[in-house]
Amino acid sequence: MDVSRKYDVNAADCPSRAVLEHVTSRWGVLVLALLRDEGSLRFSELRRAISGISEKMLAQTLQTLERDGFVHRVAQPVIPPRVDYSLTGLGREAAAHVWGLARWVEERLPQVQEGQQRYDLARAAATR
Amino acid sequence: MDVSRKYDVNAADCPSRAVLEHVTSRWGVLVLALLRDEGSLRFSELRRAISGISEKMLAQTLQTLERDGFVHRVAQPVIPPRVDYSLTGLGREAAAHVWGLARWVEERLPQVQEGQQRYDLARAAATR
Repeated sequence: MDVSRKYDVNAADCPSRAVLEHVTSRWGVLVLALLRDEGSLRFSELRRAISGISEKMLAQTLQTLERDGFVHRVAQPVIPPRVDYSLTGLGREAAAHVWGLARWVEERLPQVQEGQQRYDLARAAATR
Repeated sequence: MDVSRKYDVNAADCPSRAVLEHVTSRWGVLVLALLRDEGSLRFSELRRAISGISEKMLAQTLQTLERDGFVHRVAQPVIPPRVDYSLTGLGREAAAHVWGLARWVEERLPQVQEGQQRYDLARAAATR
């Protein structure tokens, strides 16, 4: 573990690694980035906005992020029942990082795809 | 898909989602952040620095990041054989994002752990 810092994600037993995994989980990244854009969303709105996510995975992801203190869950006292999700102050900080990363990937995708093609061609040539 | 941008990680079939998953993968995050700190590392150095990673997972992670054009692999013509890994220009951009996130998680861990304790206590009280 790096002595200059108290917590170190490179250490398997450091609790920071688990939290990093929550924030960078497949669905965690997308939920955080989306809540940053939208402010507050209902469960059903999140589910519709993130294609491919199952009800179970969305519920698990939200619960983990709520437990870490990143997501605020408010059950509205209305009929039919309605639950809204938004970012906490801490969650907004985490979301700023993953949002920036998501937008960067979208922007740079053409360059990444060119790189992938070059790599695949070089490998094909090497094994011919 | 958001019409204001060409690629959208929220769309399951958009290739940007797969690239985001490479960059945010359990080991991808750690490899990118570490190479940003260290500049260039050998396979064995990476393996030692990231506790818990297997040889197979490190090899797979490096290959994926190399294919995406984030990591540069140089096999040194020496005996015994030696392979160095470093970030490309594109990889440095990606690494800046995940490095910032990793350091943020390490810094904020005490607050996250307090939140987790509050959450667990509230749940325990609610089910008593």
